[in-house]
Amino acid sequence: MQQPLDTSAIASALADLGCLLGDRVTAADAVREHHSHGESTHTPALPDLVCFPLSTQEVSEVVKVSARCRLPVVPFGAGTSLEGQVHAVRGGICLDMRRMNRVLRVSTADMDVTVEAGMSRTQLVKALESTGLTFFIDPGADATIGGMVSTRASGTTAVRYGTMRENVLGLTVVLADGRVIHTGTRARKSSAGYDLTHLFVGAEGTLGVITEVTLRLHTWPEAVAVAVGAFPSVKDAVEAVIEVIQLGLGVARIEFMDERMVAAVNSYSRLELAAMPTLLFEFHGISQSQVAEMVRLADQLAREHGASHLTWEASPDGRERLWRARHDAYYAARSLRPGSQVLTTDVCVPISRLAECIVATRADLDRLSFSATIVGHVGDGNFHVLCLLGAEQNEEGDAFAHRLVERAHAMGGTCTGEHGVGYGKKKYLLAEHGDALDTMRALKRTLDPENRMNPGKIVDLD
Amino acid sequence: MQQPLDTSAIASALADLGCLLGDRVTAADAVREHHSHGESTHTPALPDLVCFPLSTQEVSEVVKVSARCRLPVVPFGAGTSLEGQVHAVRGGICLDMRRMNRVLRVSTADMDVTVEAGMSRTQLVKALESTGLTFFIDPGADATIGGMVSTRASGTTAVRYGTMRENVLGLTVVLADGRVIHTGTRARKSSAGYDLTHLFVGAEGTLGVITEVTLRLHTWPEAVAVAVGAFPSVKDAVEAVIEVIQLGLGVARIEFMDERMVAAVNSYSRLELAAMPTLLFEFHGISQSQVAEMVRLADQLAREHGASHLTWEASPDGRERLWRARHDAYYAARSLRPGSQVLTTDVCVPISRLAECIVATRADLDRLSFSATIVGHVGDGNFHVLCLLGAEQNEEGDAFAHRLVERAHAMGGTCTGEHGVGYGKKKYLLAEHGDALDTMRALKRTLDPENRMNPGKIVDLD
Repeated sequence: MQQPLDTSAIASALADLGCLLGDRVTAADAVREHHSHGESTHTPALPDLVCFPLSTQEVSEVVKVSARCRLPVVPFGAGTSLEGQVHAVRGGICLDMRRMNRVLRVSTADMDVTVEAGMSRTQLVKALESTGLTFFIDPGADATIGGMVSTRASGTTAVRYGTMRENVLGLTVVLADGRVIHTGTRARKSSAGYDLTHLFVGAEGTLGVITEVTLRLHTWPEAVAVAVGAFPSVKDAVEAVIEVIQLGLGVARIEFMDERMVAAVNSYSRLELAAMPTLLFEFHGISQSQVAEMVRLADQLAREHGASHLTWEASPDGRERLWRARHDAYYAARSLRPGSQVLTTDVCVPISRLAECIVATRADLDRLSFSATIVGHVGDGNFHVLCLLGAEQNEEGDAFAHRLVERAHAMGGTCTGEHGVGYGKKKYLLAEHGDALDTMRALKRTLDPENRMNPGKIVDLD
Repeated sequence: MQQPLDTSAIASALADLGCLLGDRVTAADAVREHHSHGESTHTPALPDLVCFPLSTQEVSEVVKVSARCRLPVVPFGAGTSLEGQVHAVRGGICLDMRRMNRVLRVSTADMDVTVEAGMSRTQLVKALESTGLTFFIDPGADATIGGMVSTRASGTTAVRYGTMRENVLGLTVVLADGRVIHTGTRARKSSAGYDLTHLFVGAEGTLGVITEVTLRLHTWPEAVAVAVGAFPSVKDAVEAVIEVIQLGLGVARIEFMDERMVAAVNSYSRLELAAMPTLLFEFHGISQSQVAEMVRLADQLAREHGASHLTWEASPDGRERLWRARHDAYYAARSLRPGSQVLTTDVCVPISRLAECIVATRADLDRLSFSATIVGHVGDGNFHVLCLLGAEQNEEGDAFAHRLVERAHAMGGTCTGEHGVGYGKKKYLLAEHGDALDTMRALKRTLDPENRMNPGKIVDLD
């Protein structure tokens, strides 16, 4: 996959970047190796050089060097992506954004914040501690904000607070020729021209490098309640979810775990949940009484759908323990088979088809030789399968993942709800988008005619 | 502004379109005149031909005729736009979309609906009556859904339910060469490639013709309360709004009227509101008790900011009367000076700057020779000025509108929160977007290289 680049171009770029960045550029093997992969099972691919810019201006200069030397540019955040987004499949210059991690401004009145793209989610949440506001989007990993913008990340709270699509208000972007543009305004809404912000959200660095992000913030709820309940079947659980959403209860999270995921979580996190299809709910409200009412209605709905073992956790400790267990699901799954590779895949379907999709997926898995658990952001119709693969099972795993995408497509869904395309899911975009893929390719060609911006991801030009 | 087109091209197009559409194409003067303008004071501009397509396929065929004959294509909905979006400034073929007004599918489980673009907002709300769901976005006018998508419309409920930006899940679009693409999927979220949906939302038909729209729906609230209150100053009113939002009360609407607007509304709608800066609130909740709690907290906050004459309307009739009055604000303003032209303009600023912006705007107005009222979706930082112009006051009105945009820009805002660009506000996009305007122009050139799709709006290529 990786093609050797012109070594003189690399040497020339290194000389230029050295003048610009001093010791913040390197060709050292250990650093290149660290920047050659995300957290997936995709084959690593090394960049030739790694830079550590401190400002939008420096990113612009690096991109100009890449233009002059005709080298690819690959933005790198926390390295937590799952579809090979940060793999330098054609070598080139890796832009490690982690040193650009400042809060540039925050406004409590406007409930928004502007940060540099290399700030991580937990850094941001910590920086907001004194404001009474927070940023709720949580993909699980401690990704950078720029990375989250670029994969259109979401996670457990999207059912209430939206995904990155709904929470990015504006961007600073370095284009392929090094020009810097600002998208959006600080007004909460605008009808003034094409929506460039959303063009870069989810573009995985293939149209430009995001250096600054303005985000919408939310108020910390006055009251929170968390529940866990077991259901007789996936169908019952999903029907309860649909009704909870239709009621307009404003549920903040609804997570699903299948019985195997529950068993793994019990063992890993020392819980004693019933090994049945399980839902975790979280409600946010302006007062204890409001949340109590949500709880009462949700409890009633859940019982109507056969829920048992319903436990409401009002204490912060109890809630924390449950969510910690949910967040550790990946590690819990892996612990089922120490030493295995974990293939994590992700689809999203209309919620009306979700139960059917999960049941068919479980039936498919039950015919295979490897273990797997299912966990999902069920309020969005989004679920993940964690496949525990031994040395000889990669092909079987890939074939399963392929069938999963076909199943999601057949149900009007998407090949990825939140992990993104990278190079792992490029092959599914034609089936998903049809002729619209040509339009995507035309946009890429317009903004990056030389195909230097994270080439080989999302769409190919050659 | 209007340039004569090649009459043989028009005759040739008419012949082709006649074969395709029969009597659903016309060059009749009365029909052309009807399709030459929206509701603004901008100079009308006639299309050469008007078509009434019944399907995406017919729209595609019409666009292919436009390509062959090199004629512009201007989509037309309800004709309620305010910045000249539907004016055929270069003549060509007007596509009247109103006969494409069917619901194609609705899903209560998924809380979404797909409609043809020519369906109007009230047609949609009526069609949803039996579902328990509704579509809350309400720009005031009974616009078509396609028109609302195209101007990124919003209105009174955006503070809670978002604008068209947040509520369009997918589109069917006819591109400039007649190809049909589908954007988005029926899944609630996706990370699978570039966000084409948002590229067409707000593009005013300049990148393609929208023929079908998939929209997110919302649950009708179980309980609703409406309040009206007078404040000692604009600043007090806006500060109350900021705190209500920060509390996370989930307010569904917060509308502002300045004292002159209140006086006009009192007179026109036979109300007896105090002629002071006034807020209308609406709360939606899952139960009477939940709404009662919101009301209690909002009431307390409003009083802390000096609110008087606070009246809560729980009865449907009382609420209806207040909102009818708010919706009739345009007619109320016009009745202040019968026979005048109403210049309606629209900016949006960060809410932290809103009070300052309104106060400065009122001071500006007080120096001018015409009357004007201010009304706004204050929860979004968005407000409108309705200027009542006599025959000799157009220049003075335009100069005022220009200063208003400059004021909004200086405060980090936008030249239009919801009315769009059309040709009326094209001149402000460079100041607002800087180099990003080049990127917009590049997108236009990519998707419409011959500049046939609603030319002369948003960006110019020539």
